[in-house]
Amino acid sequence: MNARRHAELLCGWCLDVRAGDQVLVRTTSLAAPLVLALQAEILARDAWPLLRVAVPGQEEGFHGGARDVHLDAVASSARAEVEHADAFLAIQAPENTRALAGVDPDRLVRMRRAQAPLLEARMRKRWCQTIWPTPALAQDAGMGTEEYAAFLERALFLDREDPVAAWRELGARQAELVDRLTPARELRIEAEGTDLALRVAGRTWVNSDGRRNMPSGEVFTGPHEDATEGVVTFDVPTGPAGVDVAGVRLELRGGEVVHASAERGEEYLHRALATDPGARRLGELGIGTNHGIDRPTGTILLDEKIGGTIHLALGRSYPETGGRNESALHWDLILDLRGGGRLRADGEMVAENGELVGRPMS
Amino acid sequence: MNARRHAELLCGWCLDVRAGDQVLVRTTSLAAPLVLALQAEILARDAWPLLRVAVPGQEEGFHGGARDVHLDAVASSARAEVEHADAFLAIQAPENTRALAGVDPDRLVRMRRAQAPLLEARMRKRWCQTIWPTPALAQDAGMGTEEYAAFLERALFLDREDPVAAWRELGARQAELVDRLTPARELRIEAEGTDLALRVAGRTWVNSDGRRNMPSGEVFTGPHEDATEGVVTFDVPTGPAGVDVAGVRLELRGGEVVHASAERGEEYLHRALATDPGARRLGELGIGTNHGIDRPTGTILLDEKIGGTIHLALGRSYPETGGRNESALHWDLILDLRGGGRLRADGEMVAENGELVGRPMS
Repeated sequence: MNARRHAELLCGWCLDVRAGDQVLVRTTSLAAPLVLALQAEILARDAWPLLRVAVPGQEEGFHGGARDVHLDAVASSARAEVEHADAFLAIQAPENTRALAGVDPDRLVRMRRAQAPLLEARMRKRWCQTIWPTPALAQDAGMGTEEYAAFLERALFLDREDPVAAWRELGARQAELVDRLTPARELRIEAEGTDLALRVAGRTWVNSDGRRNMPSGEVFTGPHEDATEGVVTFDVPTGPAGVDVAGVRLELRGGEVVHASAERGEEYLHRALATDPGARRLGELGIGTNHGIDRPTGTILLDEKIGGTIHLALGRSYPETGGRNESALHWDLILDLRGGGRLRADGEMVAENGELVGRPMS
Repeated sequence: MNARRHAELLCGWCLDVRAGDQVLVRTTSLAAPLVLALQAEILARDAWPLLRVAVPGQEEGFHGGARDVHLDAVASSARAEVEHADAFLAIQAPENTRALAGVDPDRLVRMRRAQAPLLEARMRKRWCQTIWPTPALAQDAGMGTEEYAAFLERALFLDREDPVAAWRELGARQAELVDRLTPARELRIEAEGTDLALRVAGRTWVNSDGRRNMPSGEVFTGPHEDATEGVVTFDVPTGPAGVDVAGVRLELRGGEVVHASAERGEEYLHRALATDPGARRLGELGIGTNHGIDRPTGTILLDEKIGGTIHLALGRSYPETGGRNESALHWDLILDLRGGGRLRADGEMVAENGELVGRPMS
């Protein structure tokens, strides 16, 4: 993984770092090469790197030692930090992706609720999430660490001659898809174990071209939170906060989850749904378009972008979509259409077996 | 090095961490065991750990990439952080103690000047400096890393059954020395290459019993900034900011350095003296009393506490001593009396050849 090219892409394309910006970077010490490259790139832009590097075991130790006040409140300095910073970068670089598996899910939910105002404040500024290869991530992906680093370079287009140009090109292709979906009133997803109808009339489709997620490669919107009907089965496992969750099946009536089950991690699922009323409704529908990512690797950031997949998020919508669902939760669940699924817009086929189909736009 | 005992000593004795405190900890990822132990101890006290961990190479990279704005200003978030925090802990844990050797000293001076208001603000709150064993520190000390860790445990009294009780006891012994020095009007230091008279009439002697420096073991005051006369030669090398400085000789008239030379690092010395007018005057006189530290190891924090040494600081006084010297600089220089030196107070012998002498106090 080329840290310098990664840092240039993050500062130049994703965060548009400008002179005077205070750029808050959150990661672990396993991402040290990228931290150093980012510091150099941010300084070179006359901006301020605010580096927040956790040591291995820190997050697990926090949850092991946190008392009530740490779960239900935030320190005033954490609020001040968010007020002063202009741009936020979170870099996944875990030493152990299951570090929080033993933490009581209730405690995670309480902390997420207490930190929701900080999350909202960050989302009103420039922000980006990215990922740095670690042995733990490679292990989850079933790959060697070097092999995984090469996979990530393809996912981020760092293997291309001009990564920014490659992201621009993907953005242009996605713009065509957005134009096609914008007039749609209803979407229908059909696959094995899935027949779901979502109302999207009047909602805005966002072209996610790698600025907020690096890698990205998706278009998404916020469905009407009171109109989704049917059943959906997510066949790509997801592991939020280090918990193993797979085989999630949801039944929705009037937009609300009325039945939920999971093959693994069902207790976590039920607790997540109980976060607040908005956690039982969908906040996002996204379509993955990144063909540099060819298989699930156990990381939502990557898996939801796989070309030929769809993801739905329980909880908070992104306001720019017109979605109005509010929640402290935003949990993406993924459905692979490549094995024989269909996406229709107002009855017309948009994607079949994971490939976009239908008339070109112009 | 026992990280749990070290953390307990820091939170309990040095910083007196209380419920609701925001405790800002600054170190490198080499101190990870202590960072984790501190997080646990701070959480257990219902306080907030604010962990600021640098990766190896970060400080060198900052200086390599810093532009004018980064040297002459501070980010608003850095000011806010200092305002919100209640206690500050700095842990030395370098990967390479000479990381900044190649940095233009002018740039270090500019940065120190820009950051002086933050330093002043931190000093008005609870703060402590400590040290964690790393291979680089052991190498400077001429020891193996395990041997150095054992040396540090002795220096911090972590080898004692009850470290807090041991620090209390040292504090009681130092209180006697403070009582003896408090009535003194003039101190005189004599050794090879040294004959220096300092006026201390009316100044307060501070009993440094391990709260602000861990380890400590010194009593200190702020001499009259306009009255020191004579010559002093510092025979313990000091290396601020990774620069090798040794054999510093100062001549003072009316409290001001009128001639300065060094066997090594003379350019750095002259630039430090030019920081501001206060940098040419003494801000501190300290007497080391820690016999757990038996030899210089190249680290000022430890060397200035060696039982039988004296140190003088160029620059800023500690206001609680009554010292009125102001400067962005505070640079401790050390003189070993153990080879044949004397300290007198108003003509009466206080220490000879590194041992305290004279009448007991009560």
